[in-house]
Amino acid sequence: MKRRGFLIVLSGPSSAGKSTLLDMVLKMDAELCYSVSATTRSPRAGEKHGVDYFFHTEEHFMKMAGEGALLEWANYCGNWYGTPRQYVMEAIAEGKTVITDVNIDGARQLRRTLPEGVFVFLMPPSLGELRKRIVARGADSEESMNMRLAAAAEEISAVVDYDYCILNDDLEKAARQLLAIIWAERCRVSRMEFPAVL
Amino acid sequence: MKRRGFLIVLSGPSSAGKSTLLDMVLKMDAELCYSVSATTRSPRAGEKHGVDYFFHTEEHFMKMAGEGALLEWANYCGNWYGTPRQYVMEAIAEGKTVITDVNIDGARQLRRTLPEGVFVFLMPPSLGELRKRIVARGADSEESMNMRLAAAAEEISAVVDYDYCILNDDLEKAARQLLAIIWAERCRVSRMEFPAVL
Repeated sequence: MKRRGFLIVLSGPSSAGKSTLLDMVLKMDAELCYSVSATTRSPRAGEKHGVDYFFHTEEHFMKMAGEGALLEWANYCGNWYGTPRQYVMEAIAEGKTVITDVNIDGARQLRRTLPEGVFVFLMPPSLGELRKRIVARGADSEESMNMRLAAAAEEISAVVDYDYCILNDDLEKAARQLLAIIWAERCRVSRMEFPAVL
Repeated sequence: MKRRGFLIVLSGPSSAGKSTLLDMVLKMDAELCYSVSATTRSPRAGEKHGVDYFFHTEEHFMKMAGEGALLEWANYCGNWYGTPRQYVMEAIAEGKTVITDVNIDGARQLRRTLPEGVFVFLMPPSLGELRKRIVARGADSEESMNMRLAAAAEEISAVVDYDYCILNDDLEKAARQLLAIIWAERCRVSRMEFPAVL
């Protein structure tokens, strides 16, 4: 049985734990491909171009968007983020499972451009817990922290538009659940091609 | 987050390996509940009433069907098989995951009575392999074997009506895939109830 590839879209409020969870499942499933996002924000300590993000100037980013080179693009807290089209489409055509993490706006756009995608919402245990994590990261100014927290509260209500929801109260459990979703989706009849004579 | 329970319907041709696979996942997931089917066929060696099947006379079986006590019932190779309604509906209402194995006709009926169910097709590696397994079991007469094999070839074409398809070329892998489907379906947003204030 052949099967078409697909895109898993992991989304959720800022600091819900998306990047950590992504790193974990990428180590647990060797067949999973990561779609590196493009962004105009500055690299944080240790982040590498082409690995964590493609870091671009706003001018270059907008040129990509204008040329149709991005599947979605959205502004979040003053910076642009986007999903490069070519890598995702080629990998799906080859039957691969591609995963990416995007914010809520980006996920909404992907739902339109790739309705066959699998949309997973990562739910923080509570807003209180989320505030602790954002503060603990210490990467943001207080104004930026408050913006992120206000955005998170609104974003959580978007969960109803997703296929799956994972509660991130236990990272190991959340990783097992995300992996289960990926494995299950690989068994979807709607993506399989059956030979004429079985 | 609360969630509604659901029924996993495992179906596929006779001797595709449904019972073996079911036994495996029931040991791997302590929260999974098995819905014991009712049947009019004779017990095979080692089978116990209320554990493997509820063994009934045809008269009693038909009385249950007439009273609405069965979610589905179907004749397969001269015997009746059915799914008792009460156990399944109560377990689902309590938020549990219930699993049952039924034949293709039974699965078609369950799709109508329980459209929210999760339908998994267990695909034998090939018809040649299926014949070997049916012969190896040695439980059937040659006529019965040929009937089962002819039914299997037709039944395989029903796969397109299912949500998921698992290829049973490796029992351990098939069990991991079925477990992944169960875990993934527990993360379905459509079965979750979110508090008004998150």
